[in-house]
Amino acid sequence: MSRFFSDKLSKLREYTPGEQPKDKSYIKLNTNESPFEPSKSVAEAVQKASKNLNLYCDPEASSLTQAVAEFYGVGSENVLMTNGSDEILEFAFLAFGGSGKKFIFPDLTYGFYPVFANLSGVNYEEIPLKEDFSITIEDYLDKNANVVIANPNAPTGLVITKSDIEKILIANKNSVVIIDEAYIDFGGESCIDLVKKYDNLLVTRTFSKSYSLAGARLGFGVACKEIIDDLRKIKYSTNPYNVNSMTQVAGYFAIKDSDYYLKNCKTIVDNREYLKQELEKRNFYVTDSKSNFLFVANPKIGGKDYYLKLKELGVLVRHFDKQRIKDFVRITVGTSQQVDALLACTDKILGELL
Amino acid sequence: MSRFFSDKLSKLREYTPGEQPKDKSYIKLNTNESPFEPSKSVAEAVQKASKNLNLYCDPEASSLTQAVAEFYGVGSENVLMTNGSDEILEFAFLAFGGSGKKFIFPDLTYGFYPVFANLSGVNYEEIPLKEDFSITIEDYLDKNANVVIANPNAPTGLVITKSDIEKILIANKNSVVIIDEAYIDFGGESCIDLVKKYDNLLVTRTFSKSYSLAGARLGFGVACKEIIDDLRKIKYSTNPYNVNSMTQVAGYFAIKDSDYYLKNCKTIVDNREYLKQELEKRNFYVTDSKSNFLFVANPKIGGKDYYLKLKELGVLVRHFDKQRIKDFVRITVGTSQQVDALLACTDKILGELL
Repeated sequence: MSRFFSDKLSKLREYTPGEQPKDKSYIKLNTNESPFEPSKSVAEAVQKASKNLNLYCDPEASSLTQAVAEFYGVGSENVLMTNGSDEILEFAFLAFGGSGKKFIFPDLTYGFYPVFANLSGVNYEEIPLKEDFSITIEDYLDKNANVVIANPNAPTGLVITKSDIEKILIANKNSVVIIDEAYIDFGGESCIDLVKKYDNLLVTRTFSKSYSLAGARLGFGVACKEIIDDLRKIKYSTNPYNVNSMTQVAGYFAIKDSDYYLKNCKTIVDNREYLKQELEKRNFYVTDSKSNFLFVANPKIGGKDYYLKLKELGVLVRHFDKQRIKDFVRITVGTSQQVDALLACTDKILGELL
Repeated sequence: MSRFFSDKLSKLREYTPGEQPKDKSYIKLNTNESPFEPSKSVAEAVQKASKNLNLYCDPEASSLTQAVAEFYGVGSENVLMTNGSDEILEFAFLAFGGSGKKFIFPDLTYGFYPVFANLSGVNYEEIPLKEDFSITIEDYLDKNANVVIANPNAPTGLVITKSDIEKILIANKNSVVIIDEAYIDFGGESCIDLVKKYDNLLVTRTFSKSYSLAGARLGFGVACKEIIDDLRKIKYSTNPYNVNSMTQVAGYFAIKDSDYYLKNCKTIVDNREYLKQELEKRNFYVTDSKSNFLFVANPKIGGKDYYLKLKELGVLVRHFDKQRIKDFVRITVGTSQQVDALLACTDKILGELL
């Protein structure tokens, strides 16, 4: 830290993304990426855009915004595109966190929420999940706090129902309720259509998982016009050209090719259910994940040990140091080949324990 | 504005980027873009990267960071790559603005500085330039304030010397001095090598102007390791994957092709001097710009009128509503053809006034 660093931020603890080791080539099941390449039209559009990079991108990302709005059945005024969904979440904490109102979210969820809160100087409360990691909906009613819930939740993959989300929206009419749907294309019910009914709902989405664009950085928010206008104000006060022109066309053609991507999601869901069964046969406890990852623990081996041994064998998964989930690892569901490789390594590891 | 918007930000006025009209095709001399396409190796690298977009980009942008560091003769630990230079500036206001220390910058400069200050809740003071728009160095000595100076300055194009920058650095040892070198490749002396001598210097740069990558969004900061570590902490608290993988390779190959880009800069400088002479022949007052734009006024026509009439004729330049510079327009220096087109339109406009 330099001697100039802000007093106000001296206790800030930054987010730690999943490791990206370069020492050797791994089967990478640690950051919930899609194992499938983007569609051909995406690569073609990017190639074309690469020739006009001397010109600024459209700050409004108009064509992309309109394509996304059409696909999800809302108006362009209900959508704001961002540099990954981390950016729309950051904007939301900034925009809605300054009125002394706290944010509440589960104690186990996407690790970036408390970081955004700390950076924005916003109070927050982490609400404990039940023993089985499920959410107690009643904990989120009439709290007079802004609510953030990932649905499916990370790293557990568990979902809540749309009717439960409506309960939360109705009970928190004077607060913003953010539903982070990063993983919704792999299961669960999207609540995007509820933005027409509730002016306090913000749904956030990413192209990083189901749309094979993690490396392009693209996310967005869907909400009533007034909330989107607020978030746009923050965008124009931080980075008006936040989504570069290559990513804008990549996103546009990805949405136009949604059949390809949603078919890939179906494959991942099939592989997830197969992997879940196989792990359960091996005495793993596996949460009922509706996402593109499984959250698993085996009574015979600690989470960190399992993670380290898999890494030795060339398979990367993610382990979190948090006490409550130290027995678990999070495994991204990949192709059949990747799933089989993980199972083979797991058998080797468990076999050596005997 | 929604009813949820932060009280603290209710007076925030966002930045207004240069217009990007879609009604017809203009000769675009309003946002200081390069008229030259990126080099071929950039397009080829982007094309390759477009096939691996399903994987996250390297959050450290290691190869790019190293290439940039080598090119500028500093260590990798002295460089942080960002999503345009707006982002590194935003990080700096956040990182160094929280200790009650104010920021100072000229009253005429890049319009984003006060926006960043307001967003970060930082006090700032705008220090008036002299009548001729030059900076009074003494105004920046012993102020106990963080300093931001664009060199060359925008929208005037005027530069300060490296020895003046050293005076400011020495007189403000306990504050951060940010030198925004967005336009330095078109003239003036870079002070990047001073980061080895002064631990309170942060130099910011962009690939948007001299490196033909405005649409790719790439900027960076150069400073001592401690300042870079602070800025990295902010990056990992907002958007760890801030620079997408296509832009990372685009920047890498652009730096490797620097001969091509610096030759383009030389062409722009030649065109600038030609345009300056021609405008002066037509009784324009033209500042001594060392940038890729000219800041000009003609006694016969107001800035807004000149801008509007040029727009009618299909040439876009930028006019700022600020009272002090309402007689001026800022003209990006383009190709010879673009310069000639601007002059022809100017002659038409001036002729019609007679």
